[in-house]
Amino acid sequence: MRKICIVIGSRANYSSIKSAMVSIQKHPDLQLQVIVVASALLDRYGSVVDLVEKDGFVPAAKVYMLIEGETPATMAKSTGLGLVELPTIFEQLRPDFVLTVGDRFETMATTLAAAYMNIPLAHTMGGEVSGTIDESIRHAATKFAHVHFPACTEARDRIIRMGERPEDVYLVGCPRIDLVAEILQQDRTDLGPHLFAEGVGESLDLDRPFVMISQHPVTTEYGEGERQVTATLQAVQDVGLPAVVFWPNADAGSEDIARGIRKFRERHKDFPMHFFKNLPMDIYICLMAKTSCLVGNSSSAVREGAYIGTPAVNVGSRQYMRQRGRNVIDIGYERDAIGDAIREQLRREPYESDPIYGDGHAGERIAATLSDCEVRIQKRITY
Amino acid sequence: MRKICIVIGSRANYSSIKSAMVSIQKHPDLQLQVIVVASALLDRYGSVVDLVEKDGFVPAAKVYMLIEGETPATMAKSTGLGLVELPTIFEQLRPDFVLTVGDRFETMATTLAAAYMNIPLAHTMGGEVSGTIDESIRHAATKFAHVHFPACTEARDRIIRMGERPEDVYLVGCPRIDLVAEILQQDRTDLGPHLFAEGVGESLDLDRPFVMISQHPVTTEYGEGERQVTATLQAVQDVGLPAVVFWPNADAGSEDIARGIRKFRERHKDFPMHFFKNLPMDIYICLMAKTSCLVGNSSSAVREGAYIGTPAVNVGSRQYMRQRGRNVIDIGYERDAIGDAIREQLRREPYESDPIYGDGHAGERIAATLSDCEVRIQKRITY
Amino acid sequence: MRKICIVIGSRANYSSIKSAMVSIQKHPDLQLQVIVVASALLDRYGSVVDLVEKDGFVPAAKVYMLIEGETPATMAKSTGLGLVELPTIFEQLRPDFVLTVGDRFETMATTLAAAYMNIPLAHTMGGEVSGTIDESIRHAATKFAHVHFPACTEARDRIIRMGERPEDVYLVGCPRIDLVAEILQQDRTDLGPHLFAEGVGESLDLDRPFVMISQHPVTTEYGEGERQVTATLQAVQDVGLPAVVFWPNADAGSEDIARGIRKFRERHKDFPMHFFKNLPMDIYICLMAKTSCLVGNSSSAVREGAYIGTPAVNVGSRQYMRQRGRNVIDIGYERDAIGDAIREQLRREPYESDPIYGDGHAGERIAATLSDCEVRIQKRITY
Amino acid sequence: MRKICIVIGSRANYSSIKSAMVSIQKHPDLQLQVIVVASALLDRYGSVVDLVEKDGFVPAAKVYMLIEGETPATMAKSTGLGLVELPTIFEQLRPDFVLTVGDRFETMATTLAAAYMNIPLAHTMGGEVSGTIDESIRHAATKFAHVHFPACTEARDRIIRMGERPEDVYLVGCPRIDLVAEILQQDRTDLGPHLFAEGVGESLDLDRPFVMISQHPVTTEYGEGERQVTATLQAVQDVGLPAVVFWPNADAGSEDIARGIRKFRERHKDFPMHFFKNLPMDIYICLMAKTSCLVGNSSSAVREGAYIGTPAVNVGSRQYMRQRGRNVIDIGYERDAIGDAIREQLRREPYESDPIYGDGHAGERIAATLSDCEVRIQKRITY
Repeated sequence: MRKICIVIGSRANYSSIKSAMVSIQKHPDLQLQVIVVASALLDRYGSVVDLVEKDGFVPAAKVYMLIEGETPATMAKSTGLGLVELPTIFEQLRPDFVLTVGDRFETMATTLAAAYMNIPLAHTMGGEVSGTIDESIRHAATKFAHVHFPACTEARDRIIRMGERPEDVYLVGCPRIDLVAEILQQDRTDLGPHLFAEGVGESLDLDRPFVMISQHPVTTEYGEGERQVTATLQAVQDVGLPAVVFWPNADAGSEDIARGIRKFRERHKDFPMHFFKNLPMDIYICLMAKTSCLVGNSSSAVREGAYIGTPAVNVGSRQYMRQRGRNVIDIGYERDAIGDAIREQLRREPYESDPIYGDGHAGERIAATLSDCEVRIQKRITY
Repeated sequence: MRKICIVIGSRANYSSIKSAMVSIQKHPDLQLQVIVVASALLDRYGSVVDLVEKDGFVPAAKVYMLIEGETPATMAKSTGLGLVELPTIFEQLRPDFVLTVGDRFETMATTLAAAYMNIPLAHTMGGEVSGTIDESIRHAATKFAHVHFPACTEARDRIIRMGERPEDVYLVGCPRIDLVAEILQQDRTDLGPHLFAEGVGESLDLDRPFVMISQHPVTTEYGEGERQVTATLQAVQDVGLPAVVFWPNADAGSEDIARGIRKFRERHKDFPMHFFKNLPMDIYICLMAKTSCLVGNSSSAVREGAYIGTPAVNVGSRQYMRQRGRNVIDIGYERDAIGDAIREQLRREPYESDPIYGDGHAGERIAATLSDCEVRIQKRITY
Repeated sequence: MRKICIVIGSRANYSSIKSAMVSIQKHPDLQLQVIVVASALLDRYGSVVDLVEKDGFVPAAKVYMLIEGETPATMAKSTGLGLVELPTIFEQLRPDFVLTVGDRFETMATTLAAAYMNIPLAHTMGGEVSGTIDESIRHAATKFAHVHFPACTEARDRIIRMGERPEDVYLVGCPRIDLVAEILQQDRTDLGPHLFAEGVGESLDLDRPFVMISQHPVTTEYGEGERQVTATLQAVQDVGLPAVVFWPNADAGSEDIARGIRKFRERHKDFPMHFFKNLPMDIYICLMAKTSCLVGNSSSAVREGAYIGTPAVNVGSRQYMRQRGRNVIDIGYERDAIGDAIREQLRREPYESDPIYGDGHAGERIAATLSDCEVRIQKRITY
Repeated sequence: MRKICIVIGSRANYSSIKSAMVSIQKHPDLQLQVIVVASALLDRYGSVVDLVEKDGFVPAAKVYMLIEGETPATMAKSTGLGLVELPTIFEQLRPDFVLTVGDRFETMATTLAAAYMNIPLAHTMGGEVSGTIDESIRHAATKFAHVHFPACTEARDRIIRMGERPEDVYLVGCPRIDLVAEILQQDRTDLGPHLFAEGVGESLDLDRPFVMISQHPVTTEYGEGERQVTATLQAVQDVGLPAVVFWPNADAGSEDIARGIRKFRERHKDFPMHFFKNLPMDIYICLMAKTSCLVGNSSSAVREGAYIGTPAVNVGSRQYMRQRGRNVIDIGYERDAIGDAIREQLRREPYESDPIYGDGHAGERIAATLSDCEVRIQKRITY
């Protein structure tokens, strides 16, 4: 009976690993341990912990570790705080595996705590390429992990080229796509009225064309966020479609983006927009299936967007070199260029589903692998 | 005028970077900032901070960050504590570069703090291969660093294979060898009397054959340290030469090794041994130039030993795959095999100097590079 | 030349000690050291650090230490984080005195760091009585402090009764009143237009009657904040005067109060209100000199209100037993009773100034005392 | 069923609360929760955690929180680290009461975590008077505690004079005396042979006169420890009785005392001494019942010594103003005066038992009180 410990630090973390959690919890030879930390505990990021509990997972511990400031310095300090506390919890829980998710800054706290404590470490979504500090975090996590669960073939190949043993690398697909597949099978024709009772701003008619905007800070372009998001908002206004706008995540620079959105909103009160902190994954995916265009720099445009076939305009450097399908148009931070790209998407034919990030069974594969893989705790680079 | 910040966390850290510190301090276009942390502040690891100050460096801050316990968990927590505090200091000092050293566990605190804060990060001694968690730490530091200073050609090639840009990799040699070269030029014929007033145990006659023992915990073999060091001590006793014995470093498992040494000492009071916590680098190198054989798992046997030509018996997995010269015999943890290897070294001819880890000018090259290199703060893997 | 170190952790901290900072900086035998921490660094609490710098003080360090969550647990953890970091800074600055302010939760971090490190500790505003955990914090700070600066006679007597030596207790008045006295001497007839460009909500006509609302969480009544503030807002709406509303401070429960305000605002969009995060002290005091009634549980109603003569309705337990003048009517959390109390204040004659909390020279007395007082570092209770 | 949480931070902590733990665990309406932290987890302080587990208590969490350095700064930082971590554990355990012990520096971490989190806090051994920073810590803990368990009448009266409500103050005696009473009822005539197999140094004949030495650092006299303990050791050597010597506790300055002892030992190898890190409480008490004189500044001389009737010479300021019986002679740090005081004790008649610190039933009273007392979570000073 292997104990598998998962640390959830944000909404993105959760939906990136939930299907694996379900499969682990169901697996007869595995026991799931959940720790909820950082922004996943916070009201202003949508209280992800409530979702986790509603989904039937019982957190073994909750660790408040996010230091306010949303600067690069507090991002580092928050990671440090997690690294101070997680070993205490790991010593309580004594997991046989820690499964760490992706490339968020708190990921390093989980990664280092497990690796330093000689607990076998598995890592999802390694080997991908992106902008921001996430790029370094992801590859560093690979260098600590004993078992790798890349989402696509390019990522798998990159992990092996970095010196990991091929027998430790399991191509499983992205667990987020598992959720997407499930949601798309449901019949959801009644989104509107309930939806716009949440958040603030106008109610939109979802049967008519609308744009989605989801733009997050780029940590290596700290201080630029307000200007960047303003260009996107202006471009959407230029195109003239109503917009569903999402507040940014908790990375360094988040406050800049939020300020840009707030100011734009005060200045353009009659432009039809609705603002959400966060939405349940299922509703978000339904919106992606309906929207005329998803604008910004969310990874959902590239990953889920490929599977769903969502027309997307990807702004700036945040998704650079991430493997992508035909549904994405890439563009810089200029208002006019963004506007043109949106209009281009409005003209195109619908996209077909493109399962480059998985076929909907990643979670099952992860659970099966964790139940019987063998681990060499002393890592060695292969060359 | 670039400000170069260096964090010294241990005695090993200090001697691995001291020659670069001297060159940076002398360089007209560079300003040196020194932070002393962790075991480098502690009496029981030889108060390295006093040495640093005596050498003319003025610490801008001192951060106590070592959490007692010497378990894998406290190693993780200590790193976390450093990562909580270093950003505060970096915001005070606003360095243009942080130069991080090697692969000790505290190295990750410096590495993450700088990288998350978008401060250009340079890393020495990357690309090498070893046992213990240091292996993962070193390669992870490579994935965060913007500028690399490997010590030997194999290490350089490995860094590039891991996906770093060749133009960011500077082969400079190991700065420790700079110190070794300098020390060997001095005339030191008078070591004995003063030397054995320090430490505890018998005074040895250094003009007669003697063995040196330096054995540290292997973090991935936690709990084995007492048994491991006892085999080494017994083997030396079997050979019958007097021994200079060093206490272990502060890694997880250190207490096990220390207990093994203490018990052996109580049981064999008439076996001629002398015990040191630490020695000034210059005296240590002189001993390496004089000893009949250096036994244990210290990296000094491989690195400095190659340059000096010290006969060495390397025990166990700690130095696995580290590039080495002819002076080293590798062996497992068995008492008899260790004894045989020591006797084999006693029979051989003297070794010639083998400069695979540098020619004595690494520090100057590091300073020169830091004064004029260009950095891309947004890293990208090259494939 | 004594070095006096002051740690600013919030807006309230700053205005409670600013006049002493000015006097210390001017004093020929004193040198001022300023550390800015916690909510004083944060945008969403009004970036007090910018004010501090604009006022000519140069922070020697900035310590991000507020852990997000605004629960009782994060209040404790934030204090712990401060206590981890402040000793590092104190060792850099080596102050001869640390001057700690009042009774906020971060105050304990400053207090313990100084006391444990044997740095003489002076404490302002001790000996007062209030609700919330501040009550215990204040008296505990008294038990650590070597020099006491109470603001009023009752407080002085209480400090001595708690076992402090009378010769260590200096009645100086409250330094906040120094600022108030200074502001009231200025001619400020032009508040309106610029003022309401800040914050959000309607522009009010300050020449017509208006109410001020300032209500903070009561940490020992955690979870009640939304209900409590809603009763106050409804009562003000019942009375029918327009209102200037302040967002709550960063104590545990702050998010509850903020939610109550946000919901009320969404539901009563046509009720004339204007919302501020924070105002410069001088503008706040001018509003207090103009308002028909200050409602809520801010200590300003009791302290500055006495000196200014502001009609005030004090709601709930937060100011319980604080020495107060005739200007205050105390009331519970019931909507109707609050409304009646406000109407009662509207009917009364103007209040005269009542200097029970000082005569405007507290800061000078503090500086003078710190320059020549003698301290016994080993404290002893007097009975 | 009330959950009572106790945090054990040191050997002294444990023996000061063990009898209450036993009574709480037996009580039908109470559930015991134990957290082991700080030096109680460490090998070099005798692994108190092993004792705790052997005694049948199952720790719910273990928190490594002692930052190495043993300076005043690390004492503060360690407390901060505890205050960062304990809230996480308290949120897991959700105790109805936290019971905090005495006046050690980590005590403040427990005290603040519970008080800030609105968990009712009970405090043992408040109201006493001593030297060092413990004095302030103890009284500050009183100002946070909701229920007080003083050990003697003077302490009870002092707590009430400090402004605590008499109905919250329960005179119960000292729980350490419960253990002493129990131990003295056992027949222990066979101490010697097994005893001196532990520790290092000579075996002493316990049927002949011998001295015990237990001297700890005085935190407000930091840097003096080596000189202080040397005077004591020399005085004992002057008197000429063999000595049982105890290593100091983990307070700031401990390393100074330890160095003094080590140097004395190296210089006087033929003086009959035996050294212990720690001894099981029962053996320590038996030694106190046998020794000719207990010298140093341990509180055991005053508290247990009174009950047992141990002749004691109390050196320096550490036990100043602590209520004491006839068995204690107080003296300064001078070698000759200490020697004279020891000789004076050797001449006196045996002392009778003096139960000023309790009758052996403190633990039962604490458990009974915790099971039915009522608590006002909002504290108010009584005057």
